[in-house]
Amino acid sequence: WRIVERDGIMQLEREFTFRNFKQALAFTNQVGDLAEAEGHHPALTTEWGKVTVTWWSHKIKGLHKNDFIMAARTDEVAQSNVRAD
Amino acid sequence: WRIVERDGIMQLEREFTFRNFKQALAFTNQVGDLAEAEGHHPALTTEWGKVTVTWWSHKIKGLHKNDFIMAARTDEVAQSNVRAD
Repeated sequence: WRIVERDGIMQLEREFTFRNFKQALAFTNQVGDLAEAEGHHPALTTEWGKVTVTWWSHKIKGLHKNDFIMAARTDEVAQSNVRAD
Repeated sequence: WRIVERDGIMQLEREFTFRNFKQALAFTNQVGDLAEAEGHHPALTTEWGKVTVTWWSHKIKGLHKNDFIMAARTDEVAQSNVRAD
């Protein structure tokens, strides 16, 4: 994960790579399910073979402890996919 | 749709708004299905209440007639959702 700043807002961002578009979109849905369950939502950019996940806290316009927790949980989702392959 | 230029690549981009994250993600999946069916894939940024769709042709690093066709078909997907509400 890297910390980026956009429009003055600090964000946590990481790219995850996949074999094709379908697998990328499946990951987007998995992270989307996690987001819905936790009531905290990232930006998910889905492309062919790649998903970019960006976490930040809209209310404080920056990073909160919860964003780092969600980033770690996003990694867990990605790792569970690798093991399932 | 507006034409944007990123890293010297012309792209077609439009934002679609929704009531929540779930509806936004559903639209992402619908456009993803269309992309898979046509073998031409956009970047889809899914956020709470918003999806940004970006079409361009990777091979020519710019815009091809097909991107404009896919943009129109993306609008059709969005309009079919409105009618279904």
